Amino acid sequence: MAGNTFGTIFKITTWGESHGRAVGVVVDGCPAGLALSEEVVQGELDRRRPGQSSISTTRKEEDRVEILSGTFDGVTTGTPISMLVWNKDAKSSAYDALRDRPRPGHADLTYLARYGVRDHRGGGRASARETVGRVAAGAVAKKLLAESGIEVVGYVLELGGVRADLPDGLDPSALREAAEKNPVRCPDQLAAKEMIRAVEEAREAGDSLGGVAEIAAVGVPPGLGEPVFDKLDADLASALMGIGAVKAVEIGAGVEAARMSGSEMNDPILPGPEGPRFATNCAGGILGGISTGSPIICRISVKPTPSISRPQRTVDLSTGEAAEIEIKGRHDPVIPPRIVPVAEAMVALVLADHLLRLRAARI
Amino acid sequence: MAGNTFGTIFKITTWGESHGRAVGVVVDGCPAGLALSEEVVQGELDRRRPGQSSISTTRKEEDRVEILSGTFDGVTTGTPISMLVWNKDAKSSAYDALRDRPRPGHADLTYLARYGVRDHRGGGRASARETVGRVAAGAVAKKLLAESGIEVVGYVLELGGVRADLPDGLDPSALREAAEKNPVRCPDQLAAKEMIRAVEEAREAGDSLGGVAEIAAVGVPPGLGEPVFDKLDADLASALMGIGAVKAVEIGAGVEAARMSGSEMNDPILPGPEGPRFATNCAGGILGGISTGSPIICRISVKPTPSISRPQRTVDLSTGEAAEIEIKGRHDPVIPPRIVPVAEAMVALVLADHLLRLRAARI
Amino acid sequence: MAGNTFGTIFKITTWGESHGRAVGVVVDGCPAGLALSEEVVQGELDRRRPGQSSISTTRKEEDRVEILSGTFDGVTTGTPISMLVWNKDAKSSAYDALRDRPRPGHADLTYLARYGVRDHRGGGRASARETVGRVAAGAVAKKLLAESGIEVVGYVLELGGVRADLPDGLDPSALREAAEKNPVRCPDQLAAKEMIRAVEEAREAGDSLGGVAEIAAVGVPPGLGEPVFDKLDADLASALMGIGAVKAVEIGAGVEAARMSGSEMNDPILPGPEGPRFATNCAGGILGGISTGSPIICRISVKPTPSISRPQRTVDLSTGEAAEIEIKGRHDPVIPPRIVPVAEAMVALVLADHLLRLRAARI
Amino acid sequence: MAGNTFGTIFKITTWGESHGRAVGVVVDGCPAGLALSEEVVQGELDRRRPGQSSISTTRKEEDRVEILSGTFDGVTTGTPISMLVWNKDAKSSAYDALRDRPRPGHADLTYLARYGVRDHRGGGRASARETVGRVAAGAVAKKLLAESGIEVVGYVLELGGVRADLPDGLDPSALREAAEKNPVRCPDQLAAKEMIRAVEEAREAGDSLGGVAEIAAVGVPPGLGEPVFDKLDADLASALMGIGAVKAVEIGAGVEAARMSGSEMNDPILPGPEGPRFATNCAGGILGGISTGSPIICRISVKPTPSISRPQRTVDLSTGEAAEIEIKGRHDPVIPPRIVPVAEAMVALVLADHLLRLRAARI
Repeated sequence: MAGNTFGTIFKITTWGESHGRAVGVVVDGCPAGLALSEEVVQGELDRRRPGQSSISTTRKEEDRVEILSGTFDGVTTGTPISMLVWNKDAKSSAYDALRDRPRPGHADLTYLARYGVRDHRGGGRASARETVGRVAAGAVAKKLLAESGIEVVGYVLELGGVRADLPDGLDPSALREAAEKNPVRCPDQLAAKEMIRAVEEAREAGDSLGGVAEIAAVGVPPGLGEPVFDKLDADLASALMGIGAVKAVEIGAGVEAARMSGSEMNDPILPGPEGPRFATNCAGGILGGISTGSPIICRISVKPTPSISRPQRTVDLSTGEAAEIEIKGRHDPVIPPRIVPVAEAMVALVLADHLLRLRAARI
Repeated sequence: MAGNTFGTIFKITTWGESHGRAVGVVVDGCPAGLALSEEVVQGELDRRRPGQSSISTTRKEEDRVEILSGTFDGVTTGTPISMLVWNKDAKSSAYDALRDRPRPGHADLTYLARYGVRDHRGGGRASARETVGRVAAGAVAKKLLAESGIEVVGYVLELGGVRADLPDGLDPSALREAAEKNPVRCPDQLAAKEMIRAVEEAREAGDSLGGVAEIAAVGVPPGLGEPVFDKLDADLASALMGIGAVKAVEIGAGVEAARMSGSEMNDPILPGPEGPRFATNCAGGILGGISTGSPIICRISVKPTPSISRPQRTVDLSTGEAAEIEIKGRHDPVIPPRIVPVAEAMVALVLADHLLRLRAARI
Repeated sequence: MAGNTFGTIFKITTWGESHGRAVGVVVDGCPAGLALSEEVVQGELDRRRPGQSSISTTRKEEDRVEILSGTFDGVTTGTPISMLVWNKDAKSSAYDALRDRPRPGHADLTYLARYGVRDHRGGGRASARETVGRVAAGAVAKKLLAESGIEVVGYVLELGGVRADLPDGLDPSALREAAEKNPVRCPDQLAAKEMIRAVEEAREAGDSLGGVAEIAAVGVPPGLGEPVFDKLDADLASALMGIGAVKAVEIGAGVEAARMSGSEMNDPILPGPEGPRFATNCAGGILGGISTGSPIICRISVKPTPSISRPQRTVDLSTGEAAEIEIKGRHDPVIPPRIVPVAEAMVALVLADHLLRLRAARI
Repeated sequence: MAGNTFGTIFKITTWGESHGRAVGVVVDGCPAGLALSEEVVQGELDRRRPGQSSISTTRKEEDRVEILSGTFDGVTTGTPISMLVWNKDAKSSAYDALRDRPRPGHADLTYLARYGVRDHRGGGRASARETVGRVAAGAVAKKLLAESGIEVVGYVLELGGVRADLPDGLDPSALREAAEKNPVRCPDQLAAKEMIRAVEEAREAGDSLGGVAEIAAVGVPPGLGEPVFDKLDADLASALMGIGAVKAVEIGAGVEAARMSGSEMNDPILPGPEGPRFATNCAGGILGGISTGSPIICRISVKPTPSISRPQRTVDLSTGEAAEIEIKGRHDPVIPPRIVPVAEAMVALVLADHLLRLRAARI
């Protein structure tokens, strides 16, 4: 209800502010008997962490996860898995100047409208630091999905107007390997170079850039999803639109579907050794809210980082007068490369939830 | 859990198949004391009904709503509002030929994977007829929102590649009036004519077309939404992606945000007589998942109608062999004009829910 | 949220007022492929119906159920099962005198406090007529449980101070057969006679009596339930306390547990051919919120019917002055015999829900 | 879904095992602006803590709570309040002998049936240590209730067969003060002495005793609760039955209601300066699932501590043979005195939730 819980059977609750004592997550509903260690979770958190490259923020966040409950002898027990990361490198004083000057593009004014009070330090609960909990929980979900042969992979498709050129066919390991080779997480190495150049130019101009990330899930069996609400695509849309900075979510053909004819859009059905299969995948692996067995393809359009060092117009809340703001913190000039592990986590959480939901739907 | 309930406080459960005895909805959580009559609900259902124009299906569905509970002396009592529409004009036999031949672009195969059994008549639960319940419930939500000065209006922005040219500024009554003047529900009358021509060409070619609809909510106070999950934009994305045929959801700048710089995207904050306001609305009325007080702007990309009369490739389920299918029913060649009242309903349901959620957030 | 939905996976939403147009229920989350007909549901509704005997109300309610959705070719399709019973024998005018005089022991005043408005006719939503929906849904749940060999049986244990003397060992068919032989639904025929006499005396005195009903579930496998909240006993307590007129819920030894020692209360564990079993069943089939495999035993204490014909003290709401009230309607002088099918339904709903929940708990 | 979350708007999720690294709770949905400090929470935890007196376990648990999120400048921010208590005095090895010998009266066998794996150390998640999270969350709920003038007080009414004699009228402060004067938490000092004697005798005999606790809430306004499911009494029943060792829940007259006549049970309605009020309170402050404005009275019957040092019959899981078990740990011979703060917390959580739910029910 208060918007900090996600999922129905495989359910997570995240907590914590960017400059509070810690951030964390409670994962409830993970089946018992799943092998799980702090290393597995740490691996995903390391992919999310800032300070990884020349083009991302220089903040150092060690982000060591501690699993406080829910495992015994190296496997899950079916009880809540509580995971925590202490906040260390938090310079609260840097935000004092912002206390009365809401930042354009941020949630400062809306939190004030919603709650009346606000932890102004670094965005508080609205900070991207909250995603630590999502990524940690997503690591558990990915482990559960792997038991059923499902893999989730994400990468940057477009950044600052530069579009990647990706080959047909979807080999998730190859895509991931290629994407992780460069700091913008784009599997097309040539495009990646151009993207990096665009990012550096934006940074020098005190500005920021938007981009597009794609997340694919392969190995998803047909039949996952619900028919009317809680459709698989509806849940994915919620999961992905709920990540800060995302302004559009597409499934399969996405916005292009609006410009297609039915004879182009409809994926023909062909006979196959294991039953009917689809000749193409404009549907993005989902029909009627339920998985088709083809790869699930999601795309998110990510707005430029709202924290820019250029002067911006705002209002001084103490006086009500017009004011100017320059944001001095250490901020990524682009979000898509770092959003990839978060988006993968959200997709994994949705799929894990629907995998368990399907089990409850049998006599 | 089983995907037929939407909302948390203002909550609806729809039921019914296209060729079953009736379709309906139970609205739970509507506050007591709201004036409500069958006429109000009927008005919205009439906008949704097929058979309204030359370009939509010629099926005749009278669709008279009956309110069976939850009102007394013309006002809501706070108890569940059960509403029902009997199915009348249902030619089940027309679907017999389709029993073993799943239709491309439809949920036939996925329902089979999900449930093992399937009511093959007219799509069953996956039929657009299910949206009768959504629209009826949305009428109640709109009535509740109107008490708080909130209005929701939708229209077609693009159809078959023809884009409307809309003036700046958003006068909801004018937009609605203009949109309802033509059968494609486009407020730009010139574009509407071109759209109609494109639709007629597609129909003659035995094909169908996609398009884009926009839904705007004006009068939404700042502070509606949740901070991490259940964000207002996440809930809208779920609500809209969960309508059949929608393949993309955008908020504000949407997919264009990916090509903008931070200095373009960030809406400047200006002083105003009632507190800070935003100079522009690239955010689409939502920051950090919470409403800003600016109009909320959503866009959906709608795929072409999957039922086309051209021959399509499929599989005969009784033999497992390749087969051909020609869909003979009476179908709209475009979905966007008829999706508008459904999308308005979904947006209204999300806003009504968050309006009540906000009330529960005060000491 | 608004208190008309019960369950998490096997979920029901009831609607309707005693003197509205109809009462009904939507069952969501029932797996596909379960054989279901109106006859099966009708059988349970017939057990619930008033006008069955000399000691119950003389109102005639035909209560024919109509299944409006969710089945096809005689089996469930996995989509919502909407069931409806029209209200027929509703003399609203009989309640006019009560409009301003809240009845002691009824929800008249509390509904007014809760909603501000109130459908005063026959208790409106607070009427026992609402349980039509519960019993109809319970019939579906019982059908699902039967597939797993689980049976639920209820009977009256005590009425007007007369206690039944039941043999040890629990043969559900024998108990049910014995209980259905007399109008008080007590398997002990001698006690039943005394109970009937007590009821007739109370009726003549213009008064009413309370009693105790017991509901047992046999065939429940070990492992059903949740560990901390949503425990099986907690859910049963909620399900049963939520039936009008119930003032206490006991599991197993119940209130007697407070007077026992640990060495008496602890059920010894013995080796058995299919694994450990329990020598006794003071636990009532539940330990730590999870079923043990022994029969689940619940008891409810039911208050006397609040509608009595003796004069009672109340307040005239139009004047605020003290007033007297004599309730003239046709009312059962005792509730337990008619509460039995309702309580069975609620127990069945809880068990069906946890049966499905358990399935979602496996890797 | 997985049974570790309680509440709908004011919602808590507890986590942790008795011998894991920590136990904790996330409170979500607490309104912003509530003054909250670790001291307030610590005060309630201190009442729960073992090692407080001669008659309770001699384990030393310091149980210092740490608030990790959700407060800023001494008030709640409306975001999740994460609270944690580290486990310190946990002798896991003491439980090695129990690994293969399930303890009668405990959840050992049922957890195994439910999860397949089990953390056998000290009951794991089924341990009373889990209630640390409930009590911490309850402290926040009590603080919120106090803002609305609602107070919750609990005490022991019966222990080992000794019944307290309490004066009519309910002065919560006096009751609490009297109850906290003795280690059995009974406001009747004479009865308390007898209770203590009974407990000491049981301990010497290697046995344990049951008892009854009563929890009262005063200052609850009329109108709290829901009409059909989620009734206030149903939620209280769930909340209280869900505490380990509780085998019966009563509201108001409770089990005695079954032996009363309608003319005795119905509380007469009288005119009062602030509207109608009730002459008596057999209803226990709830009619039709909704609060009447009279004090809410709940009673729980608590079974004897299952851990007793006498030899008990069990089965050796490694061999499947009959075995004997003697439980050597440090255990309270009676649970009611320590259950009081837990039961108060659960009642407070239910009331806080319904208080917020009521706010969401207004136009």
